[in-house]
Amino acid sequence: MSKVVRFNRTGGPDVLEIINEQVPAPAADEVQIRVHAIGLNRAEIMYRNGQYVIDPVFPARLGYEAAGVVVAAGDNVTEFHPGDAVSVIPSFMFNEYGMYGEVVNAPVHALVKHPENLSFATAAASWMMYVTAYGALVEFGNVQAGQNVIIRAASSSVGLAAIQISNMLGAKPIALTRTSEKREMLLKAGAAAVIATDEQDMVAELQQATAGQGAHIVFDPVGGPDVAKLTQVMASQGMFFQYGALDSRDMVVPVFDILGKHLTLCGYELFEITTDAERLARAKSFVLEGLRSGKLQPWIDKTFSLDEIAEAHRYMEANGQVGKIVVTI
Amino acid sequence: MSKVVRFNRTGGPDVLEIINEQVPAPAADEVQIRVHAIGLNRAEIMYRNGQYVIDPVFPARLGYEAAGVVVAAGDNVTEFHPGDAVSVIPSFMFNEYGMYGEVVNAPVHALVKHPENLSFATAAASWMMYVTAYGALVEFGNVQAGQNVIIRAASSSVGLAAIQISNMLGAKPIALTRTSEKREMLLKAGAAAVIATDEQDMVAELQQATAGQGAHIVFDPVGGPDVAKLTQVMASQGMFFQYGALDSRDMVVPVFDILGKHLTLCGYELFEITTDAERLARAKSFVLEGLRSGKLQPWIDKTFSLDEIAEAHRYMEANGQVGKIVVTI
Repeated sequence: MSKVVRFNRTGGPDVLEIINEQVPAPAADEVQIRVHAIGLNRAEIMYRNGQYVIDPVFPARLGYEAAGVVVAAGDNVTEFHPGDAVSVIPSFMFNEYGMYGEVVNAPVHALVKHPENLSFATAAASWMMYVTAYGALVEFGNVQAGQNVIIRAASSSVGLAAIQISNMLGAKPIALTRTSEKREMLLKAGAAAVIATDEQDMVAELQQATAGQGAHIVFDPVGGPDVAKLTQVMASQGMFFQYGALDSRDMVVPVFDILGKHLTLCGYELFEITTDAERLARAKSFVLEGLRSGKLQPWIDKTFSLDEIAEAHRYMEANGQVGKIVVTI
Repeated sequence: MSKVVRFNRTGGPDVLEIINEQVPAPAADEVQIRVHAIGLNRAEIMYRNGQYVIDPVFPARLGYEAAGVVVAAGDNVTEFHPGDAVSVIPSFMFNEYGMYGEVVNAPVHALVKHPENLSFATAAASWMMYVTAYGALVEFGNVQAGQNVIIRAASSSVGLAAIQISNMLGAKPIALTRTSEKREMLLKAGAAAVIATDEQDMVAELQQATAGQGAHIVFDPVGGPDVAKLTQVMASQGMFFQYGALDSRDMVVPVFDILGKHLTLCGYELFEITTDAERLARAKSFVLEGLRSGKLQPWIDKTFSLDEIAEAHRYMEANGQVGKIVVTI
């Protein structure tokens, strides 16, 4: 029997239940993992609320990221064996798999052996953030040394990952955050400039920070009317990656910006990387290299126990964290 | 001496003046052409009005497209000789060159020998429309047989070109036009479906026309709030090409459409093709093949004389034309 997290109706953190369940043996292309750490993601809150790209099927599972030790492998699995330390890359939907549990099955394509210098907590905190940022900045955005990268909601785990990846490649990460509360932290995390958008003139500050060159990449999980301010400071041929919908209002896009500068706006999701074998292989290689070298260092804000899962969701919803929230088992 | 068109202030068609000018000998990389036909473009009206991507420098030239006969070639020119029938592909700005004249110089990279089955009027009407539509649909959009292509302002010359190119490649062109006045003409021009957007429920009609598959490509010179209706009926991974700004209001983009379907919105201009030697070579080859085979047949609405240039502009501004307006000399 394994403790697992389920919910039977959408709603606040209190809908989450911890139940005991007999986890079935892994199917041919699955691996069973004893979980040591779970990385929490905002997608899980949206799914719990019924506001995600798919609707929950009850009793609903949750959880994209985990790290642990293989306890059993399906018949077709050759790469992983019991005892291997692995982490799970989000590359499935919650109606297929959920990592919130002591013992879980995961599809073999989602697994990676993580470098020995990583703790389970750090490994569980790595893949969503780095692969998400990598996909936009590197795979699709082809960011080059010297280019300006505007990172909105920069204190989120994916935002911090984008800062580190920009620095790893010699680009200039410009962090947007609502208030100056997180300014020092973001500078410490590697931001070349920090703009507090509720307190400063965002456009004027961005024009100064991009120093006439403009931003080649904007990486934005928010959207909404302020998109119109960001396109103003983009460079010719710039790429705008919309990877979330924290502001559910329509994006506002000035036609003369998009036309005159040949801008490209992409709706981007991690799954464009993780469901494509070649892209996923490049992503694994890039992130593993960064983790091994120490140029990519996951930033863990706070850890909770599995019994505190509702508390952990509540903490994420309060938006106070900087970096990743992890559940350790 | 050659009659040429100039203007000394921005404004309506009456600012256009016809003057006599001694055209200088072509520079090393230029060819001098005796013009037989000029293709008119909306960009010229926007430039004349002072509403184009560049501001006029007075006395200002005009004209992207022409066809005629080479009268002299610059020292570096080997491919073209006096007597060759050529047409001019828009690949320069009006502050560099303007084709409104009896004799003009043009940069050699902009020239193409047109197929013998084309009249000068037809050759002058071909390149802006076909290369513009080709660039979005084929070079960047990679349209495939069976895919749905939504073409807004479909009765414009570029819209008609997009209909023909879609059909040439086995895709399904869905024409949007404001009223039912041009419905029959658009069906005759090859549209698989025609939707009169002022008279019909655009979204419902598009859902029916795209038959559950959605539109892989939207090709739109308008923009504005209705973009939000078009993204609703786009297919996953769909591409939206904004190639004009007939509606100067901001584009409205629903974040859940762009995110959930991984849509890409591109500001697109012809110059992304014509200023890139490899792309331009592919475009020339594609369009020449279509013109030779007869699958691409320019649609000429009306011809004017050079003396009637202001009248020709006035006619274009009245938006009554279907297809290309040409000045013959």
